[in-house]
Amino acid sequence: MCRRWTPCRPVLESPIDLHDRSSSTRFFWAASPGQIYPELKRLESDGLLTRSEEPHGGRARNIYSVTEPGERALREWLTESSDAMFEMRNEALLKVFFADVLTTEQQIEVVRAMRAQHEAILDGIRQGTPAYRADRQFGYISRLYGLGLLGWVVEWCKQLEGDLAAGRMPLGFEGDDAVAARTR
Amino acid sequence: MCRRWTPCRPVLESPIDLHDRSSSTRFFWAASPGQIYPELKRLESDGLLTRSEEPHGGRARNIYSVTEPGERALREWLTESSDAMFEMRNEALLKVFFADVLTTEQQIEVVRAMRAQHEAILDGIRQGTPAYRADRQFGYISRLYGLGLLGWVVEWCKQLEGDLAAGRMPLGFEGDDAVAARTR
Repeated sequence: MCRRWTPCRPVLESPIDLHDRSSSTRFFWAASPGQIYPELKRLESDGLLTRSEEPHGGRARNIYSVTEPGERALREWLTESSDAMFEMRNEALLKVFFADVLTTEQQIEVVRAMRAQHEAILDGIRQGTPAYRADRQFGYISRLYGLGLLGWVVEWCKQLEGDLAAGRMPLGFEGDDAVAARTR
Repeated sequence: MCRRWTPCRPVLESPIDLHDRSSSTRFFWAASPGQIYPELKRLESDGLLTRSEEPHGGRARNIYSVTEPGERALREWLTESSDAMFEMRNEALLKVFFADVLTTEQQIEVVRAMRAQHEAILDGIRQGTPAYRADRQFGYISRLYGLGLLGWVVEWCKQLEGDLAAGRMPLGFEGDDAVAARTR
């Protein structure tokens, strides 16, 4: 797990709309326009992208395309074997982690809030560009990943809400003896 | 999805070792010691934590405990209904997203690298404090979540590696007609 900042080098010719809030990368790559625009400028001045303008409702819209050196840099990044960045900040789950000080009803509410948040992210992925295209197969595959992963989280929350309401131990629980035997 | 920075308010009396790299919160709450120490100082000067020193191998170790106002602040944070932060940066998945420009063999390698990384995170969770304690039930539950979630990702990668090698469409694929029908 590496903490260095990797500039968002890859920008492809296929339409990735920076203003699309339900963008297909949003759920696994947090980046604000304030981070993306300077990076696009840098890539352009480095000759990895070219920019053209297109009229769009009275004002010009920037269209970026990858140059040959840009595509070489993309392939290099894709095939390099250095540690990939993995960084997660999930406050809803952090609340679950610290929920022992609450009443059972409040605990269920914390899990319900976590579920609602992940349902909203799942809806965002569902509303994102769904069409399969032969030349953008992996965008489609990443979307399937998001649907599956967020679906898993939503189901996990539902299960836990039920377990807490019924006073059951959660799925996967091992008693002290089982844990002791496994870690011996 | 909210982008504000939430200070890591909750610090409980139960042992959370800041030097434990396989800490049970690491996989869902990225925070470096450089972020945590100033925050602990602030919480102490605000009267939400008290600090005591304990001899530890020739030098003093700081032990923080939550005060009554601190526990009130913790409960307040846990039960407030504002948007919880959700921020993810998964470079391995970003590579999958852009993998169309690669050969099939290279694509499989990208997915294999994503699997290896998530297997390492899964191992970290497995090695983390496993013991169930009645007063730290939700730390245990969060760990079960991590085991389940990372296990799901590892299985997804394995499946995709097999699909790519066999030239199969990935699980969950819907042809253009099915997608068109659903989004109509």
